[in-house]
Amino acid sequence: MAQKYGHNVLKRFLHYRQCLQIFQRHGFRKIFSYSLGKEAGVTAEQVRKDFSLFSIKGSKRGGYEIDYLLDSINDIFKQNGERLVILVGMGNIGQALINYQGFRENKIIIVAGFDLDPSKCLKRFTIPIYPPERLPEMVAKLGVKTAIIAVPEISGQEICDMLVNSGIKGILNFSPMLLKVPEDVVVNDVNLRNELETLFFYT
Amino acid sequence: MAQKYGHNVLKRFLHYRQCLQIFQRHGFRKIFSYSLGKEAGVTAEQVRKDFSLFSIKGSKRGGYEIDYLLDSINDIFKQNGERLVILVGMGNIGQALINYQGFRENKIIIVAGFDLDPSKCLKRFTIPIYPPERLPEMVAKLGVKTAIIAVPEISGQEICDMLVNSGIKGILNFSPMLLKVPEDVVVNDVNLRNELETLFFYT
Repeated sequence: MAQKYGHNVLKRFLHYRQCLQIFQRHGFRKIFSYSLGKEAGVTAEQVRKDFSLFSIKGSKRGGYEIDYLLDSINDIFKQNGERLVILVGMGNIGQALINYQGFRENKIIIVAGFDLDPSKCLKRFTIPIYPPERLPEMVAKLGVKTAIIAVPEISGQEICDMLVNSGIKGILNFSPMLLKVPEDVVVNDVNLRNELETLFFYT
Repeated sequence: MAQKYGHNVLKRFLHYRQCLQIFQRHGFRKIFSYSLGKEAGVTAEQVRKDFSLFSIKGSKRGGYEIDYLLDSINDIFKQNGERLVILVGMGNIGQALINYQGFRENKIIIVAGFDLDPSKCLKRFTIPIYPPERLPEMVAKLGVKTAIIAVPEISGQEICDMLVNSGIKGILNFSPMLLKVPEDVVVNDVNLRNELETLFFYT
């Protein structure tokens, strides 16, 4: 699947979902590819092509049912039950993420945390915290394939290697480090500093 | 400038900087476009083309001086002094950002926070917190052009409009809302949920 549908297609689907939710809140029940494309900033042809890739069907005269589109998009992202993820690094960013409403509302559950600092493992959080040595054991026990890295730059690659060796296949990386991973592992980088810096360029 | 050099060029420069810092830490003082391109995942031609856009010069036989490259890139992003930014929304994400080391280390200073909840304005943070009504006054007083939005979806657009009307030209948006802004305002979206969801697709 990962090869067949590129990253950009997936990002567009998540963007479509955001737009569709806005239309839904405004009381719309059906939508044409033209209107969705206009809101999402792509052509109507692009919308229809993307939908047909996943066999999502509409009618030429009536357009697409918004409920059906949202269900179909959620199916693509396997949003049919709870989605489990582990978190490494219990600093400021890590602690904010375990309380992040945007995850909970969408059944994304951070089931366990890990930190190099043993004192963090004793501190009371809403999730259990373990030392990184227990990653292989806990990844297997919890059956998770996705992890968030929120550690300082210096330990980013080391933690990444431990995650990959434990069987993690998808990593959301908040460390400013460029991580080296095998071909079957996907990394999404969230470099907060870089996101701000491009703004300083424009302003 | 914003029109002349696209967003992708800027992102590449930030990526080059990360790679150059790695080379520097490993003790390298000079680098060829070929090696930098290999590390950054682009062609040597792309590296040379990007550098020449900003009149950054190297020699055919000796390559580029790493110190000079880093200075030049920092110049592009006006990293010659403190860069000021304001933050709206003092929830989990907002509070994590005011303590985020990755900003401080790079002289990015969050100078003031804003929150709709009056109790947040009384709470003790490391920066002063104001109600959003004071945005126009404080933006003018502080001379900031860049803001971070870390409010829930429902108030995202309202806060965005207030920022734009106060003179803000660059917005880092953590709300899941797609913000509507005038043409001369740049928005960088950090949608944490979407970044995780594409990973669930692959894993």
